[in-house]
Order: sequence, then structure tokens, then C-alpha cells
Amino acid sequence: MSGNVLGERELIRRISEILGGVENDDCAVIDAGERYLVVTTDMLHRKTDFPDIMNPWQMGWMAVAVNLSDIAAMGAEPAGVLIAAGLPPEADLYFIDELFSGFGDCAAYYGTRIIGGDTDSHEELTITGTALGFVEKDQVLRRRGARVGDLLCTTGALGGAGGGLWAWQQGRLDSPFITRLLEPEPRLKEGRALAQSRAVTAMMDSSDGLALSLSDLAEVSHVGFVVQEEALPVAEGLVEMVGPEKALETVMSAGGDFELVFTVRPGGLEAARRACELTVIGEVVEEGIWMERGGERRRVEAKGYEHRIGIQYAKIEETK
Amino acid sequence: MSGNVLGERELIRRISEILGGVENDDCAVIDAGERYLVVTTDMLHRKTDFPDIMNPWQMGWMAVAVNLSDIAAMGAEPAGVLIAAGLPPEADLYFIDELFSGFGDCAAYYGTRIIGGDTDSHEELTITGTALGFVEKDQVLRRRGARVGDLLCTTGALGGAGGGLWAWQQGRLDSPFITRLLEPEPRLKEGRALAQSRAVTAMMDSSDGLALSLSDLAEVSHVGFVVQEEALPVAEGLVEMVGPEKALETVMSAGGDFELVFTVRPGGLEAARRACELTVIGEVVEEGIWMERGGERRRVEAKGYEHRIGIQYAKIEETK
Repeated sequence: MSGNVLGERELIRRISEILGGVENDDCAVIDAGERYLVVTTDMLHRKTDFPDIMNPWQMGWMAVAVNLSDIAAMGAEPAGVLIAAGLPPEADLYFIDELFSGFGDCAAYYGTRIIGGDTDSHEELTITGTALGFVEKDQVLRRRGARVGDLLCTTGALGGAGGGLWAWQQGRLDSPFITRLLEPEPRLKEGRALAQSRAVTAMMDSSDGLALSLSDLAEVSHVGFVVQEEALPVAEGLVEMVGPEKALETVMSAGGDFELVFTVRPGGLEAARRACELTVIGEVVEEGIWMERGGERRRVEAKGYEHRIGIQYAKIEETK
Repeated sequence: MSGNVLGERELIRRISEILGGVENDDCAVIDAGERYLVVTTDMLHRKTDFPDIMNPWQMGWMAVAVNLSDIAAMGAEPAGVLIAAGLPPEADLYFIDELFSGFGDCAAYYGTRIIGGDTDSHEELTITGTALGFVEKDQVLRRRGARVGDLLCTTGALGGAGGGLWAWQQGRLDSPFITRLLEPEPRLKEGRALAQSRAVTAMMDSSDGLALSLSDLAEVSHVGFVVQEEALPVAEGLVEMVGPEKALETVMSAGGDFELVFTVRPGGLEAARRACELTVIGEVVEEGIWMERGGERRRVEAKGYEHRIGIQYAKIEETK
């Protein structure tokens, strides 16, 4: 990843200037008549995005899952996935069958289909997925929208995929965390239900880790966050495996969890809880990203933020 | 491109089996309420898809143009383009600015916008474009639909991009054909007008050369074609540059023209001519692809067909 001359912020500033205004968001939103169409695209490469223990079925699953997670983050219902695949010369029949089965199985698991694609030859396996979804116009959720006083929430548990990464690096391939890393499960049902609850003000997925999700939400919503350290839903068994300090670092900085991180308007918590299981992990404040423990606050560094060039950007039709 | 174990036909047969039925078509079609949404994705790589004389602005233009050509081939109006770009470490500010300007300028030229995307790092520049469009449900055009007795037509002139390739290989960089190769102009206006004419029964673009377009149309429509050699609209100046034999080979087999190749129902020619400038180049027959000259027919080989793995596939909602 090193060597690129631009950090993320500079890159998105330039792209936005050239393209006439784009934002850091999960999906683009366009008017499709009665509803909004949301659409996202994500490019994955063999060396940088797929752990070497991943089998081809898992690569296929992952390529679809990361895109469906962006659909979930908008509160939308998936309407199809396209796959462009650059297949390496050594890809044999088994590899291709497994890879495409992974695409199809993940789409089917979430009630949608692979509706089209493109294949060609490429030295390093490269897969670009594109996912489409529809959402009612008054229900679409964006990264922008969090307000001071909102509650900060997450679905599921955090750090599981990061625990898998750690276990893999330690050669502990029997760890149950490995599956969390290799076969992520985007939160489509939860995303839809949260959108329908009308209690949520902003949402995104936690695919790059909680700290970067909070940085992104904070930047486009022009707010800050205080996270209650003891409220964090740490993945079961993570502390036992890596110790409490590393567990906290994993929850904050490791990618791959694909939970939904969102803000709930004051008075909306009951409606949000009826929508799905969630944990309140903090609240929205004026500025900064803070971790609080025993009444003491310290600033959270969004590690890697400036060097990340893996960004998603989107134009959004004016809503609400 | 060599080394892959599968040819196109075998690959699409496997993909179709795994994904539950896909076809060789330009765009997937999904129901968006009042209209159909059409969507296509296309992956391009620095080494295999961009001639080395191409500047970064032209790479950006090309990545958008190839996708918009698929929208044109469905008779649809473009509704946005997404770009996933794997940027090589050596990409500097100038390169990135020019590349993204190329994306934006091509989209704007055709009345649409870059609505979102994803960037990351990749050894070899790789760009996956995704284009969206809308089309009235009773106007969508597909590769399937040509019937025996229909007229075979094309927009524009053929062989211009192939002439550019030849000129480039000969070091004749001042040739006007070079621009045809490096800055293709998809036929969006013509595609829309042809769809609205209701005279067209099947359509695709000629991006892989006329012979492969005819092979693809023939296969999914279960028909054949007879092409009148002397009717072919050879790009002006091509015969003078490469000679008559090479000119014909270029028209049939060279890619990059991005014209629309389509079939017109008997009695529909006048309506099609009102829609756009076109040339009748032959007719639809029961089987085979034939070239006719002076009353004599010979079979046309679709060169490279079996070794091509650069295929597009799509699911299409039942129409009409």
C-alpha cells in the first residue's frame, strides 16, 4: 500500500473537485422513481485483500459480501450484484467453479442474485463487485446526519475478524475467529429494519475497524464521538485469546467485521431496539473522537487514516 | 491472454450453470418500477487494454466510454457511472488528475456523471467501470431477438479504430485513425433513437469487431447472417492506408469501433433511418455467418472467439 503519493483526504478532495462534488459514503444514490436506487462498487485483489489461507469459494463470498454490506449501510434491500473478474492464467476449472459458487451462494444467502458481469485475464486475481439496492426515499441512511446528543450504537460484536487475523498470523488455524475473517456476514436484515425504524440518523459499516468508521462518520456529519470503553461488545473469547489491551486495539483498529455502526436520535432507542439487537457504545459530541473509561477521556487515533487510499466516494441526490 | 484453460463458450456455460442462467449480453436488466434499470460492468487493465501511447486522460475517457457503449446497446439513457480504480504506486498527481478528468469529461459529454467509486492500490493500473441506465419497458433492446428476414445494419463507419491500431504499430502516430482508437465515441443518441423507433429487433455494440458481434448476435438469437461485402461502410481512408484486403480484415476482426450493430424488422427500415444514420450491410438468415460478393457466399470465421475469455454476461428480466 505504501508508495502512493496521496493520502485519503487529499485524494478525495481532488476527486471531488474534478468530478463536481463527491462524498465519502457507502453508496451513490439515484432517483429511480418511487424509490432510490443505491449502488456501490468495490475492487479486491488477491495479494492485498484475500488472506492466503482463503479458498476460492471464500474469495467469491467475500467479494459479494463487502458490497452487500454497503447496501446494508444505506438501509436498502439488495436488487442484484455484478462481478467483474480478472482471472489469472493459473485459474483452473476447480478454482473458477468454486469462485463463482462463492459469488452465487453469498448473493442467494442474502436473497439476491448475480445479475451480470465481465471476465478477462489478469496476472493477479482482481475482483470488482458492484451491488445495487432499493430503499424508500424517506428511509435512506447516510454517513451524514449524526447530531450532537444522538446515541452511538453498533450491531453484533466487534473484533472477531481482527481476532481471526491474529490467529492466522500466529498459525492458530483452528481458531473459530478465522471463519469471522474469511466469511463475513453483512447485516442486511438489520440495516433494513433500522431504516424502517426511523430512529437512525447516520449509518455506515465497520469494515475498516471502529476507529476509522467513527472518523468517517465524524467528518461528514461534522460531529465527534465519545465511546464508553466498557460498553464495547468485544467478540466472545477475544480477551482470553489476545489479552485485554490487544483486544481493545483489535476492536478499534482491525478491519473485516462488517457490523453496522450508527447513531440513534434521542428518544429513538426503543424503536431501534425493536428493529434489531444492538449495543449502545457511546454518544455524539461536538468534536473529536474520545474513549471514556472511569470518567476519564482520551483521544482516539484513527490509525492509518492518512495513508489509506482505499476510499469509497459517492454522489447523493438531495434527500429529505 | 493465453494460458487460460477455458475458452469463452465453456466459461459462460459454467458461469451460467453456477449462477442459475446468465446470457452473453451487454447489460443486466432489472425492474425499477416504471422503467427498466440496465447495468453493466467492464474491467480494463493497463497492459492489455490501453495502447502504450494512451495518455491518462484517454484512459479515463476509455474506461467510461466502453461502459456507456453497453448502455447505448440496450437503447437506454445513461443514469450514472461508478469507477473502481486500482492505482499503481507510480501514479502521481498529474496522472490522477488527468485520469479522473477523463472519467468526468466522458460522462459529461454523454449527459451523465460519475456518481461513485472506490480507489485502492494495485501494481498494474486496473479500472472497473459500472454504468447504469434507464429504458422504457417496451423499448429495451437485447442481443436476442433477431429474426430471419430482418435487415442487418450498423451505425457509422467500421475499421477506424483498427486502422488506428495498425498506424500505431507502424509508428505512424500522425494518422487521424489514432484518435478513433484512443477516444472512442459510443452511440448513445443513436441507441436511444433506435429503441424509440420500435423498428429494431436486436442490438449490440461492435467493440470486439464486426465478426464477433455477429457471432454473439447469431448465437443468442439462434439465427445466421449474410453480409454484403460491398455494402460495408469502411472508414474513410482505410483502404488507401492498408489496402483493400487488410481493410476488410480490419472491418471484420479489429475491435474498438463501438458502433451499434442491429437488426431491423421487415418494413421498419424507414423508421430506423429516421432515428439515425445507418447502413444496411446484410440480412438475417437461418444459420451461419456469410460474406457475399458478386453473388458468391463464403463463411466468415469469428477469429479468436474460442480463446476470448473477455465476456460479458447478464440476467435479464422477462420482457415483452
